[in-house]
Amino acid sequence: MSARLIDGQAIAAAIRDDVRGRAEALRAAHGYTPGLATVLVGDNPASATYVRMKQKACAGLGLRSVPHVLPADARQPEVQRLVEALNADPSIDGILVQLPLPGHLDEESILSAIDLEKDVDGFHPINIGRLAMRNRTPLFIPCTPFGILRLLEETGVTLRGADAVVVGRSNIVGLPAAMVLQKADATVTLCHRHTRHLARHLRHADIVVVAVGQPELVTGDMLKPGAVVIDVGINRKPDASRPNGYRIVGDVDFESARAVAGAITPVPGGVGPMTIAMLMHNTLRAAERHAERQRLATLLPAT
Amino acid sequence: MSARLIDGQAIAAAIRDDVRGRAEALRAAHGYTPGLATVLVGDNPASATYVRMKQKACAGLGLRSVPHVLPADARQPEVQRLVEALNADPSIDGILVQLPLPGHLDEESILSAIDLEKDVDGFHPINIGRLAMRNRTPLFIPCTPFGILRLLEETGVTLRGADAVVVGRSNIVGLPAAMVLQKADATVTLCHRHTRHLARHLRHADIVVVAVGQPELVTGDMLKPGAVVIDVGINRKPDASRPNGYRIVGDVDFESARAVAGAITPVPGGVGPMTIAMLMHNTLRAAERHAERQRLATLLPAT
Repeated sequence: MSARLIDGQAIAAAIRDDVRGRAEALRAAHGYTPGLATVLVGDNPASATYVRMKQKACAGLGLRSVPHVLPADARQPEVQRLVEALNADPSIDGILVQLPLPGHLDEESILSAIDLEKDVDGFHPINIGRLAMRNRTPLFIPCTPFGILRLLEETGVTLRGADAVVVGRSNIVGLPAAMVLQKADATVTLCHRHTRHLARHLRHADIVVVAVGQPELVTGDMLKPGAVVIDVGINRKPDASRPNGYRIVGDVDFESARAVAGAITPVPGGVGPMTIAMLMHNTLRAAERHAERQRLATLLPAT
Repeated sequence: MSARLIDGQAIAAAIRDDVRGRAEALRAAHGYTPGLATVLVGDNPASATYVRMKQKACAGLGLRSVPHVLPADARQPEVQRLVEALNADPSIDGILVQLPLPGHLDEESILSAIDLEKDVDGFHPINIGRLAMRNRTPLFIPCTPFGILRLLEETGVTLRGADAVVVGRSNIVGLPAAMVLQKADATVTLCHRHTRHLARHLRHADIVVVAVGQPELVTGDMLKPGAVVIDVGINRKPDASRPNGYRIVGDVDFESARAVAGAITPVPGGVGPMTIAMLMHNTLRAAERHAERQRLATLLPAT
């Protein structure tokens, strides 16, 4: 048996098409183009690349992106003032502060300064708290966990009551992915570097999400036959047969896992394309909410 | 074999003694008595009882408690204004809004209005977000999960790397208890009403926390020999042999569990006494932080 491939490229393309169409409708109805502000502090090359990819994605869907770059030694008040100015700017619907920030900055304070209605990355502590808690709903789901949720929906797997194992507990992927699955009524086990019995936990899991940045950590023999496997990892593995001397592998050993799993994401082409697609979706949703608030404001008498 | 009993009464008494001594020291050094404001909305008898118990605990430790009672039909702005007045009152160190609030009130907004430095219940969304996330530390840990942590410490069980199962995911106990254990580097599985394989999860758990309000749901045959079992439940079970016609049982079947577990909390006398003891501890800590801020303020030049 060979697992069905979960085609992140195709699913992300469908989400982008939806965003493009709705952005066009917003423009037609309100003369309004959704705007995403990106905030990059410093010149980390990977961060700069991510921000460029996000700007390019905006351009492809008819969204405006407004780049802001601050020097690596920008002080806390300077970053906060920029965020506050973007909060107050009615042409900006979403604010993306590219992480990680330089170590001298207080990440939590800066993320907390973002207007909840513009928190399209979903990392505001209030949004994370709402994601964790019962009877509360975040305005935005963090992009990678949201993408994982969409990929799972695509497989048709039932989340309620499923046993799910999330490997890795980063604030950006593993932890919020566990929260999303828990909110969908899965029974979630969150594994990490101190976990002793990873294989035993995995063996019973209907759903496996791996986000640790360790090449091919999870192998087919650890999996339950038929499991749905979401591989968030993107690692370089030395490969002398390739012109550049490496190939890209995930946190899951794809060949052995494919022989056991029911469905699996390839790397690349699985989770990767989803993150930016969901950011575009969140930005569009922020703009739609914004337009709706403006429409309501015109209906209300001035007070 | 019979499990060691975890004596919540004795541990809570030691915590209260510590609070009493430190409150006295604070008074001696600063002429300052810690103050806890309680906010009760409506006349739910159980809530009124809890608030009275908290006031009584304050009185026994030399803490001031300042009761506020609003009518059951109090509107949102009225409750918020009270919280804001308590935030501004320098004689109040901790604010406890008794939950649950009447259904017409927005619980999250009211909890969010509490000054983080006075959030002795630890339910402010920012505190919950910090509890969940990596590299962040809440100012206060919610009282029952904090008490559970203290009970576990008392048993000497190593949390890092332990397999822990939390049964129940309420915002007040199960969910934050899972976060606390995760933060202590346990591998946590959060089970709930939709969990299909509760016994299988429990069978491998070094630490079991049960908080579901179902009498004797967890039985000894589900447990790993030597497991540490924390029973948060307090349920009435019909018992014709008792004068009042019932007895108090936990969410764990005590007799069968005791034969398998390594350590177990009795009900009553396990978790129960810890919640209020940790509230007293949190209130004292809030007052100590307050005194420290005042001391620093006197050292700084006026600006």
